[in-house]
Amino acid sequence: MRNVLNAVCIDCGAEHEANDNTYTCKKCGGILEVIYDYAYIKTQLTREKLAGRKDPTLWRYRELLPIEEGSELTPLRVGGSPLYKADRLGKILGLKNLYVKDDGLNPTSSLKDRASAIAVVRAKHAGMSTVACSSTGNAASSLAGNAAAMGLKSFIFVPERAPKGKLTQLLIFGATVISVKGNYEDTFKLSAAAIEKWHWYNRNAAINPYLSEGKKTVSLEIAEQLCFKAPDYVAISVGDGCTIAGVWKGFKDLYEIGFIDKLPRLISVQASGCYPINRAIETGRPIEWMEEDTIADSIAVGVPRNGEKALRAIRESNGITVNVSDDEILAAMRLLGATSGVFGEPAGVTGTAGLKKAAEQGLIPEDATVVSVVTGNGLKDVTSAQQAAANAGPLGEPIHIPPDIGILIDEFEKRKIKA
Amino acid sequence: MRNVLNAVCIDCGAEHEANDNTYTCKKCGGILEVIYDYAYIKTQLTREKLAGRKDPTLWRYRELLPIEEGSELTPLRVGGSPLYKADRLGKILGLKNLYVKDDGLNPTSSLKDRASAIAVVRAKHAGMSTVACSSTGNAASSLAGNAAAMGLKSFIFVPERAPKGKLTQLLIFGATVISVKGNYEDTFKLSAAAIEKWHWYNRNAAINPYLSEGKKTVSLEIAEQLCFKAPDYVAISVGDGCTIAGVWKGFKDLYEIGFIDKLPRLISVQASGCYPINRAIETGRPIEWMEEDTIADSIAVGVPRNGEKALRAIRESNGITVNVSDDEILAAMRLLGATSGVFGEPAGVTGTAGLKKAAEQGLIPEDATVVSVVTGNGLKDVTSAQQAAANAGPLGEPIHIPPDIGILIDEFEKRKIKA
Repeated sequence: MRNVLNAVCIDCGAEHEANDNTYTCKKCGGILEVIYDYAYIKTQLTREKLAGRKDPTLWRYRELLPIEEGSELTPLRVGGSPLYKADRLGKILGLKNLYVKDDGLNPTSSLKDRASAIAVVRAKHAGMSTVACSSTGNAASSLAGNAAAMGLKSFIFVPERAPKGKLTQLLIFGATVISVKGNYEDTFKLSAAAIEKWHWYNRNAAINPYLSEGKKTVSLEIAEQLCFKAPDYVAISVGDGCTIAGVWKGFKDLYEIGFIDKLPRLISVQASGCYPINRAIETGRPIEWMEEDTIADSIAVGVPRNGEKALRAIRESNGITVNVSDDEILAAMRLLGATSGVFGEPAGVTGTAGLKKAAEQGLIPEDATVVSVVTGNGLKDVTSAQQAAANAGPLGEPIHIPPDIGILIDEFEKRKIKA
Repeated sequence: MRNVLNAVCIDCGAEHEANDNTYTCKKCGGILEVIYDYAYIKTQLTREKLAGRKDPTLWRYRELLPIEEGSELTPLRVGGSPLYKADRLGKILGLKNLYVKDDGLNPTSSLKDRASAIAVVRAKHAGMSTVACSSTGNAASSLAGNAAAMGLKSFIFVPERAPKGKLTQLLIFGATVISVKGNYEDTFKLSAAAIEKWHWYNRNAAINPYLSEGKKTVSLEIAEQLCFKAPDYVAISVGDGCTIAGVWKGFKDLYEIGFIDKLPRLISVQASGCYPINRAIETGRPIEWMEEDTIADSIAVGVPRNGEKALRAIRESNGITVNVSDDEILAAMRLLGATSGVFGEPAGVTGTAGLKKAAEQGLIPEDATVVSVVTGNGLKDVTSAQQAAANAGPLGEPIHIPPDIGILIDEFEKRKIKA
């Protein structure tokens, strides 16, 4: 990889060769970060060159990705998700320039496809035939789907609480699924032991430093979609920490190569039932274990594996932390759907819920350019969506009637529905 | 609309002005078809001009769409779905040039977004504030989503058997949902009565001739994605008949303006529990009512409202009819997922199931270029997907274990899983 210099430990700064033999620091065990040769990349990629590319997927940013030349790419259309101007939602939030990035329209319906795309491409290039990960759901389904599309086998470890929609995706994609009686931490540890024993390709985003490089493409897209005028704020839900770290890395990359001239502030949103990363920011203390008590299963991570990278990203960006209740998350699902036609899962709209709260607290200037990233499709967790709809009042449930217009008229009158 | 000549009855040939006051023939009550001024369109649209457009959505084909100039367009990214070369699946089916079009990646996760986009744009342009339809599910969720994105109100009539995933989408999008105790026919009639009473914009695809014009964009895209070399066969699931009629119209449009130089043969696939259109083709008799007995809810239509358009499309294309059992549909879900990373709902993969059957019967030459359109996302009907996975054998269900590598090793041995 001519574009990559090395992989550096974010704790002790030790430098390592960037390859799939080394995922964590050999000196101190810290997490690694992929370091690019920006001077070289500047000679290879210009905004004009990029504008001429027809490929809408994350591979259009290949000069900024840790992919060996000549690698076989995943055929799925990963990335290239739409960025919508959300004026009706913006009006409610008091924001004049609000955008929603719908990453639930990725091939397996979540942002995690961006990381899994990198994983399967690297695994295939390394001659591996099997990939594996532990996940609360989305990383798993995205790995299983991308592995199927590349002709790789997949072994997936999920905690027993994973919603049915996500589990079913895995099985349809032909993965071998191990449902672990325990929490995310237990699941993660068992997957690590199995990966070591059977030498599978390791797609645990917490460990494998290449995955947040895939996730960063959401920021590359946001910037390109805004004609390389960086937004002032980006709101995103936070669990393991890998995604917000990726978001930050993407903007920093673009800043380094001169494509944008400022960096956004991150709005880090966690569930108030599980917010170890935000708590560390708010208290100035190290990250400590927390209960995992939220319906936003994808971000219910009591022991964030990428916590340090996330903390650094939030602090460097002069970020804002917001914690939201399950009710606030459910309300955001309905609000986003009814104002914008975007249907996100609970963890997918947690960023939007946090943005709403921050806006109501006056933390966001009304003329700021703000992007809320929706990280997963609401169809992944229909049970929560039903709850969200029911919470929305009498119109949150269907009106059950026989096929009779007279009865329909009566029902509308009774329910004060204006037809 | 300078590009549209008029709307002609497909039964008696009577010509009508193309507008939203007339949906069915004033003379005989027949279904109308939108007729274009191809000579004019040829002066406005060239392949080169199209290639230069950055908009990936269906609006890139605006010269071929019944949209008034200056209309406000739906902001959702409708259309532009990926076309994947499906080599692993092709090998199993004995087809060397097989492609899968994943229309489940539309904003509300089905092909129906293409029709609903036209509906909301026409409704808004006509100054209407409310749209309505009856639907087995996908037309409904797509209308509700696109209406929300355009700031329109929506009233949706669904038969009581509609899967929860689809119902929940409606409620999240803020639609008023009327669940009708009865079948699709009962639901359709009640919606028609309500639309007449309250003067809502009518998005019933069976009646409104503009909607299959939206659906045809799937063919425009397929042709463009294949560099305007038309495929030899296109396999698609058939319910109401509107979609296959739209698919045919798309290819015919392109043929008329000289973008393609031949037309594909259609493979019309219905569920063997409900195949009134295919039965009419197979027996040469008129379409007659049939029971609606299939898990593929989106195509369980016993009284197809667009039957005549569908029959004409299948016959004109020298098409093939195939009927598949629920088990064949479920098997296609798993096969498509595990070989291609594409997760379709039952009706969404019915085309693929039929293609498999036709290929096994030797009806498709192995070197033909074949496109299988997947019309809806599997997350819309997780219950059926679970069944599909369970049918696939021992690996169709998760392996439940405590977090212990020894137990995992034992389980793999017991189940003969090669790690």
